[in-house]
Amino acid sequence: MNYCSECGKSVDKRIPEGDDRPRYICDHCNIIHYQNPRVVVGCLITAGDKILMCRRAIEPRKNYWTLPAGFMENGETMLQGALRESQEEACAEVKGETLYRLFDIPHINQVYVFYRGELKDGAFAAGPESLEVQLFDESEIPWKDIAFPVVTDLLTEYLDDRKKGVFPVRVDQPSPLWAEHTGWNKR
Amino acid sequence: MNYCSECGKSVDKRIPEGDDRPRYICDHCNIIHYQNPRVVVGCLITAGDKILMCRRAIEPRKNYWTLPAGFMENGETMLQGALRESQEEACAEVKGETLYRLFDIPHINQVYVFYRGELKDGAFAAGPESLEVQLFDESEIPWKDIAFPVVTDLLTEYLDDRKKGVFPVRVDQPSPLWAEHTGWNKR
Repeated sequence: MNYCSECGKSVDKRIPEGDDRPRYICDHCNIIHYQNPRVVVGCLITAGDKILMCRRAIEPRKNYWTLPAGFMENGETMLQGALRESQEEACAEVKGETLYRLFDIPHINQVYVFYRGELKDGAFAAGPESLEVQLFDESEIPWKDIAFPVVTDLLTEYLDDRKKGVFPVRVDQPSPLWAEHTGWNKR
Repeated sequence: MNYCSECGKSVDKRIPEGDDRPRYICDHCNIIHYQNPRVVVGCLITAGDKILMCRRAIEPRKNYWTLPAGFMENGETMLQGALRESQEEACAEVKGETLYRLFDIPHINQVYVFYRGELKDGAFAAGPESLEVQLFDESEIPWKDIAFPVVTDLLTEYLDDRKKGVFPVRVDQPSPLWAEHTGWNKR
């Protein structure tokens, strides 16, 4: 940030009085331009034993597999956002949706909020941001071609929870599972 | 938003190609300035049967009672933010913390994420944003002087959950409880 988005004059970066960290300040408007984490909302959609996954048509991680998810928009609830992304990326309607998993990704200033639910009417298709959308059995999940660490974690935890028949809501940072599955740490 | 925060030139508000809602666009930098909801993180802190509350020293809702909570900062996890706010507003350390309640407040583009935990070492005090900090029994909670609807909801749900001895993680929008408790709907 170099300029005030309200008046267009240069901003200064300093610690405001009574604060403890540097902020972008416009001394003309007398505004502090706070910068805060963004929320990514998504949905783990199942059809019987199968899980719906999308192969990304866009960067980052084009060609890799993910779950329907994207940035939460102003004016919507987290669930509305997750259902919107399911519709946009996988042309999928969801039923029986429930909160499932939160992830903190502090180094990129993001929070992920995943719901889980069932595919309604069995219909799905690739939206504009997906190359293909597919239902995978546990044995078919493309572990080595997963787009993001949170997806690997979420799938691993879900499959484990499904065996136990309990689905607690959890929150913490992504584990190193993704690196193990993809061999990312060996590059 | 009137100006690009990167180059200081005027932004245009229009629907970008492939998008479905208006965004602020800088045609000089070729950047879309997305605007997304903010996350408020907080903590319901208990000491035995009592609940720790803070009387606000700042607007909005100065003089009204709330729980330690505030905007999540870049570079921190949700829990780190909730514990930071507990320290800043109530000089309170927390132990045994666990995720408890999410609220959507789409009309002000906010998400609330509350943890619950126990007061560590029994120590607390008013931080700079609090006029006073106090432990309340269920019978002492100042229902008519609560700062925000989410606080009324959270306390009501917590007291109910405590009677049942189960504390499920829930997410949905604030209920009209606050209006009922404060008489806000009668003004």
